[in-house]
Amino acid sequence: MKLSTASVFLCMASAVNAFAPASNARVSTSLNMSGVERNPNFAKLAGGYLFPEIARRRNAYLAENPDMADRIISLGIGDTTKPIPEHILSGLVNGASKLGTQEGYSGYGAEQGMGDLRQKIATVLYDDLISADEVFVSDGAKCDIMRVQQMFGPGVISAVQDPSYPVYVDTSVMMGQTGEINTETSQYDNIVYMPCTAENNFFPDYASLPRADVVYFCSPNNPTGAAATRDQLTELVKTCKERGSILVFDAAYAPFIRDPDVPKSIFEIEGAKEVAIECNSFSKYAGFTGVRLGWTVVPDGLTFADGTPVRNDFNRVMTTAFNGASNIVQAGGLACLDPEGQAEINALIDYYLGNAKMLKDAMEEIGFNVFGGDNAPYVFVQLPEGKKSWDMFSEILEKAQVVTIPGAGFGPGGEGYLRLSAFAPRDSVIEACDRLKKAMV
Amino acid sequence: MKLSTASVFLCMASAVNAFAPASNARVSTSLNMSGVERNPNFAKLAGGYLFPEIARRRNAYLAENPDMADRIISLGIGDTTKPIPEHILSGLVNGASKLGTQEGYSGYGAEQGMGDLRQKIATVLYDDLISADEVFVSDGAKCDIMRVQQMFGPGVISAVQDPSYPVYVDTSVMMGQTGEINTETSQYDNIVYMPCTAENNFFPDYASLPRADVVYFCSPNNPTGAAATRDQLTELVKTCKERGSILVFDAAYAPFIRDPDVPKSIFEIEGAKEVAIECNSFSKYAGFTGVRLGWTVVPDGLTFADGTPVRNDFNRVMTTAFNGASNIVQAGGLACLDPEGQAEINALIDYYLGNAKMLKDAMEEIGFNVFGGDNAPYVFVQLPEGKKSWDMFSEILEKAQVVTIPGAGFGPGGEGYLRLSAFAPRDSVIEACDRLKKAMV
Repeated sequence: MKLSTASVFLCMASAVNAFAPASNARVSTSLNMSGVERNPNFAKLAGGYLFPEIARRRNAYLAENPDMADRIISLGIGDTTKPIPEHILSGLVNGASKLGTQEGYSGYGAEQGMGDLRQKIATVLYDDLISADEVFVSDGAKCDIMRVQQMFGPGVISAVQDPSYPVYVDTSVMMGQTGEINTETSQYDNIVYMPCTAENNFFPDYASLPRADVVYFCSPNNPTGAAATRDQLTELVKTCKERGSILVFDAAYAPFIRDPDVPKSIFEIEGAKEVAIECNSFSKYAGFTGVRLGWTVVPDGLTFADGTPVRNDFNRVMTTAFNGASNIVQAGGLACLDPEGQAEINALIDYYLGNAKMLKDAMEEIGFNVFGGDNAPYVFVQLPEGKKSWDMFSEILEKAQVVTIPGAGFGPGGEGYLRLSAFAPRDSVIEACDRLKKAMV
Repeated sequence: MKLSTASVFLCMASAVNAFAPASNARVSTSLNMSGVERNPNFAKLAGGYLFPEIARRRNAYLAENPDMADRIISLGIGDTTKPIPEHILSGLVNGASKLGTQEGYSGYGAEQGMGDLRQKIATVLYDDLISADEVFVSDGAKCDIMRVQQMFGPGVISAVQDPSYPVYVDTSVMMGQTGEINTETSQYDNIVYMPCTAENNFFPDYASLPRADVVYFCSPNNPTGAAATRDQLTELVKTCKERGSILVFDAAYAPFIRDPDVPKSIFEIEGAKEVAIECNSFSKYAGFTGVRLGWTVVPDGLTFADGTPVRNDFNRVMTTAFNGASNIVQAGGLACLDPEGQAEINALIDYYLGNAKMLKDAMEEIGFNVFGGDNAPYVFVQLPEGKKSWDMFSEILEKAQVVTIPGAGFGPGGEGYLRLSAFAPRDSVIEACDRLKKAMV
């Protein structure tokens, strides 16, 4: 018996209390197809995930222009390029080496992470604003966002900045929280899009929009590079509290903040511990994009409407669907939080912020309105009126062999903008600035 | 406006086509509670995840008997204890070291894993029965099972061996595939439990049970230690094919197989590529329980009922909700698949199988019926009629300071059995056998 889409959804609803008896009947499978209905939420996803799509277009260009292979410069995906500095590296190498000795060997660790790493994150990065048992160490913020979604389940309504990191929306769709995409607006039903453009200085007015259960907010922002001030975040926390929303604060770019008026954690804001979850990552912090280490803070004081601590359910996700970050990688995380590691990280960040300034200056010199890049590794370029971002992406790839990211890839609100990443090596950034200035006059 | 549980589920059903407008109204939050309804699927979960519960009981015993701390021997969680051998270790150490050089540094890799590792898995471990692009490298089989569940979504009905590794059922519940637990039978509505006990030689008769969309099958089995023969797996594949079920084959213990009549992969069975997904792991293979590396094979020929390749949707999960296994760890995986690495792994497995034999002999000497342990690192002990497995767990902990796992922790079908893990160091196994023989006569 093949289930229709409608009955699959009826099944979702009836699964709570009723047992829909499974059929013994043979499923008719032509062409060797299984009798299992495809998850209808996956059919709602429009296109592939953004970054593989960028790689696909770049490869298609190179297939047609093979002589350009050596000329390509990526200002696309936010991927670190500097080697891991000495002290942090020694943490990783020693973390691996000791597994070869009986005394140093370790197997499964706590799914929530090593106790000393959780403590050091709480102390060094949060100045003990939060406690070690509120920290969950993981293999990265991207993975944690899906785990957060698993916890919330299909019944919540989510709000996202528009444009935003595509994982928030895509995982909401995959979890069944949304309706279909509206092909005219490129927006999914059941998602609250919070416009963040030059017009509102990239800070949304959540209070004027429909209420959501879960509000995803990234600052410093990917892709806009905007960093919310203390006053702005105070307002956001207050509004979430008033409306009973849970704020999922993505702080993966916190170490790039240089402005003292921009908080590095949502927990610097009064009352945030009753409102917010914070996702964070060592990726951009220490060049760990390929090494994989992140963490999520779920404060004890945050509860669901029935009083259940959110931390309990997140703990259940972590213990059931995750098995701890690699012990080798966690040893590297500990080294990141030593004073030597912190100094090395600051030097790395200074380097990438130097790149961001060069990109910003070059794009302004060409004549664009340019945002971000001061407290963030992303420079957000406003295109001339009516210029489509995917067209500009192609034009720059063809004229200058520079890979960028079209703003529209981050949601409909990103249309008319282009994101440049400051994570390329310095000489590539200099060369890219030079080529862009020549190509775009 | 607070949603009732009923309206949350109504929302799940209506989310497909309709946009349920979010309310602007302030949510009444007494005691600082958010207005977000708890995911009702999480409320269905009975108790915590098994292994943290074992640790909790062991710690409670030690809190009352602090002088016993040095005497505790764990035959509990299946956690490797031998150091990582030289060649594999050098892969990990070099994988870390090279990140300190500009030439050796790498950031984000493909979410599906390094191309050469995928190829080597296909060639060395599957003798090219499958191709590299059907292999998805991950941070472990436990995590992959949740990702497989995400792909299937809430609309499927799952079948599990009873007893079984608790992740299959727990993640089904978390995804909303099940009804409530029946407190009398300890079974969830909407799960097909396939009894595997001494009576049926630990191989279920799936054809006589209600049809499920997804059949989870682990061989060599955790916890029973049973390893399905070629004939048995041929029958299982045939039945799944006839009924249009997708078989999720968990082969995490494959390297322990010594019997030539027991296949190491489901893809050795004719027709399996149109029926099965295989999850696997380096954890027990190479002592990587803390290092974290696994893989899942999704064959090109496997489709949903509408013809969509399952591989496409799994690829969407991996690219959206995962960011690749650690580059350091993947370098270790490559070393595992060198001839030197394979030889080291075989020596490790021989050692643990030696432990299993000692445990099996000791329990038989005491007078128990004992299963498993020949092609698996688990020994499954049948308790005397009427003896509850959690009681036996406590009795052995108190009398012999040996941690075991009660069969009931793996599902109702495990009641009356005890699982012993062979992953302890040899001297601990010898000591444990000695103590058990003294305590249980």
